[in-house]
Amino acid sequence: MALIVQKYGGTSVGTPERIKAVADRVKRFVDRGDQVVVVVSAMSGETNRLVALSQAVSSNPHPREMDVLLSTGEQVTIALLALALQEQSLDARSYLGSQVKILTDDAHAKARIKAIDGESILSDLNAGKVAVVAGFQGVDVNGNITTLGRGGSDTTAVAVAAALNADECQIYTDVDGVYTTDPRVVDCARRLEQITFEEMLEMASLGSKVLQIRAVEFAGKYQVPLRVLSSFEEGPGTLISIDDNKDMEAPLVSGIAFNRDEARVVVRGVPDTPGVAYKILGPVSDANVEVDVIVQNVAADGTTDLTFTVHRNELDKAQVITEDIAKQLNAREVAVDGSICKVSLVGVGMRSHAGIASQMFKTLADVGINIELITTSEIKISVVIEEKYMELAVRALHTAFGLDDTGVVESSDNG
Amino acid sequence: MALIVQKYGGTSVGTPERIKAVADRVKRFVDRGDQVVVVVSAMSGETNRLVALSQAVSSNPHPREMDVLLSTGEQVTIALLALALQEQSLDARSYLGSQVKILTDDAHAKARIKAIDGESILSDLNAGKVAVVAGFQGVDVNGNITTLGRGGSDTTAVAVAAALNADECQIYTDVDGVYTTDPRVVDCARRLEQITFEEMLEMASLGSKVLQIRAVEFAGKYQVPLRVLSSFEEGPGTLISIDDNKDMEAPLVSGIAFNRDEARVVVRGVPDTPGVAYKILGPVSDANVEVDVIVQNVAADGTTDLTFTVHRNELDKAQVITEDIAKQLNAREVAVDGSICKVSLVGVGMRSHAGIASQMFKTLADVGINIELITTSEIKISVVIEEKYMELAVRALHTAFGLDDTGVVESSDNG
Repeated sequence: MALIVQKYGGTSVGTPERIKAVADRVKRFVDRGDQVVVVVSAMSGETNRLVALSQAVSSNPHPREMDVLLSTGEQVTIALLALALQEQSLDARSYLGSQVKILTDDAHAKARIKAIDGESILSDLNAGKVAVVAGFQGVDVNGNITTLGRGGSDTTAVAVAAALNADECQIYTDVDGVYTTDPRVVDCARRLEQITFEEMLEMASLGSKVLQIRAVEFAGKYQVPLRVLSSFEEGPGTLISIDDNKDMEAPLVSGIAFNRDEARVVVRGVPDTPGVAYKILGPVSDANVEVDVIVQNVAADGTTDLTFTVHRNELDKAQVITEDIAKQLNAREVAVDGSICKVSLVGVGMRSHAGIASQMFKTLADVGINIELITTSEIKISVVIEEKYMELAVRALHTAFGLDDTGVVESSDNG
Repeated sequence: MALIVQKYGGTSVGTPERIKAVADRVKRFVDRGDQVVVVVSAMSGETNRLVALSQAVSSNPHPREMDVLLSTGEQVTIALLALALQEQSLDARSYLGSQVKILTDDAHAKARIKAIDGESILSDLNAGKVAVVAGFQGVDVNGNITTLGRGGSDTTAVAVAAALNADECQIYTDVDGVYTTDPRVVDCARRLEQITFEEMLEMASLGSKVLQIRAVEFAGKYQVPLRVLSSFEEGPGTLISIDDNKDMEAPLVSGIAFNRDEARVVVRGVPDTPGVAYKILGPVSDANVEVDVIVQNVAADGTTDLTFTVHRNELDKAQVITEDIAKQLNAREVAVDGSICKVSLVGVGMRSHAGIASQMFKTLADVGINIELITTSEIKISVVIEEKYMELAVRALHTAFGLDDTGVVESSDNG
């Protein structure tokens, strides 16, 4: 018997039939003796429908009223799921964010959770009930409805799990786990049985969009074991947990992430004076252009080169700003490239193993790929290369680091 | 400058365009200096959509969860109307029932209001804001969402108006006021400028379905002046208020109500013993058949006749029950008639004027209509006649009591 928090996203509750299927699954857990809290999103399509309504009456919707509007999406789902559970003869009760209550700050549309009162839910669980909680929403200290931002239901689930000291937080989605890389790019990508919070953060932020980054951070901070599973088929999914198994056999690399939509800006021949990186990147950031990789080489001849990458959609904006500053700084030139990509190895094993970087560079060289930029952190190595080589790079690295699915089932992942 | 509560039903807020039109109207009131609270229903069609969803997952939906589900309808509307008002540069703020707060008992789906805290709304109004309140919903003492039952938004509006001591509660609907009778039956039916709460109750319960009876009762109890107006055209509508004008010129009859779907059951030759009416009508009522008119004549030869009317859809049920009891009571026979109707004169003027009843009976006799049953109360006289004579009776009475629209505008109504 365990206390389990399950989260189902919009697709998993997108129709009455799917809601009934969720109720079936919850019943199986209850029947084997588990206590279950279910966190749900709005039915798929509902949030877009509500946003369209708001746009039909307002050119600049006020965030407080948008939160009142959008929070109805999850409210509909909790009522329907509670009804479907009751139809299964389970004792179920729905909870709005304000009823739990999930106290947040007052930053409408992007509120942060400050505290969760789990008492009422725990007393329901102990009375044999299933608690159904609206994801994505909370309430501020003045009783205003707030939302955690799109995708925030994952965060709700993890936060509720932490508050209840749950044994596991299960995130049901449309994939059956976290893979060594995107199976659409590498046929023999393998589902990971286990991965650490840190690895998951690097995988997620680099483009493997299975879980919201914030939810993973939250789970790591409160050490809530997190499991990603499919809501459409049975299977163990991938467990995301702390790195408590210092197994020497842990693989060096857990997965390969990549990001296709990058663009590169190089400012060449900038006089190498203190604060030059800030002088260039400050205005870019002020214009709300998000900068990803930043590389500055050591100066030669009193000048240096600064390179950074941005999302491809924002390249034009970044270029205009950068050329303006480059002129002021007497830089030699600004060069841009809108057809690059980033490929990263991720693995906690890298912490204690040398030689991974050079093995990565050799693998790419062997297939004739030129590396344009390199950045490293404790548990990842990223390279920027020409976009056309992306699939080739990912596949070569996947094989070189032993990630290919060999058909042999083994628990070979970290943790 | 006045404090006005306005209520808009589902049709009046059925599309984004109509919501914008409501915002336009509210702005006109604010611009002339009024303080405005707006109470809204769910957009038309929304409640049916939500009910259909619930039926797709549950054969016997639990009322608590139905209230969670259905209350989202009004929540969507308050957010959209607040946004539309803000688009008009008005400072607006939406209120859920729980935020007001509108405290109710815990009778889900048919909750009754126990108390309303108007403080937060008043402080918003004094700060120049428009308050937008979700109709139909409240919250019980444990924080559960409750609903007042279908059509309950009228009740919310009146209750909020009473709590705020509003100058007027305006109910916007798809008709432009209360008429002397149904304009579809009598071409020259006239809009009443004013009518008393009691008259409105008799008109409403007799089939002129403009306002929820409960809302009128509530308004009468707390003496909230109520105005029915069209949300689609300009006009003064009909003011429903207390009978504080003891004008001798007040007309005898304010309107003529009628009810087509009646059926009659007569139990003939019942031994005239104490409790006989209860013995017959108790089981009918126990079977949830609503009885309308009840007439018992004085006994002759130790037996009496008891007649009552029910809704036509329930005639078969009532007949089976009555025949069974008639046998037990040794009554002579049970006769039913499924093609009758009821026509009623309503008017507070009747209280102090004799002769109205006989004028009514003469009018009907003059056009050859036979009266089957007669019942009277202080402010109404109802007759049951054959259904085929209904339109004829209503038109003849409308003319005889001076209600026809003569094209002359005059303030000739009670009040």
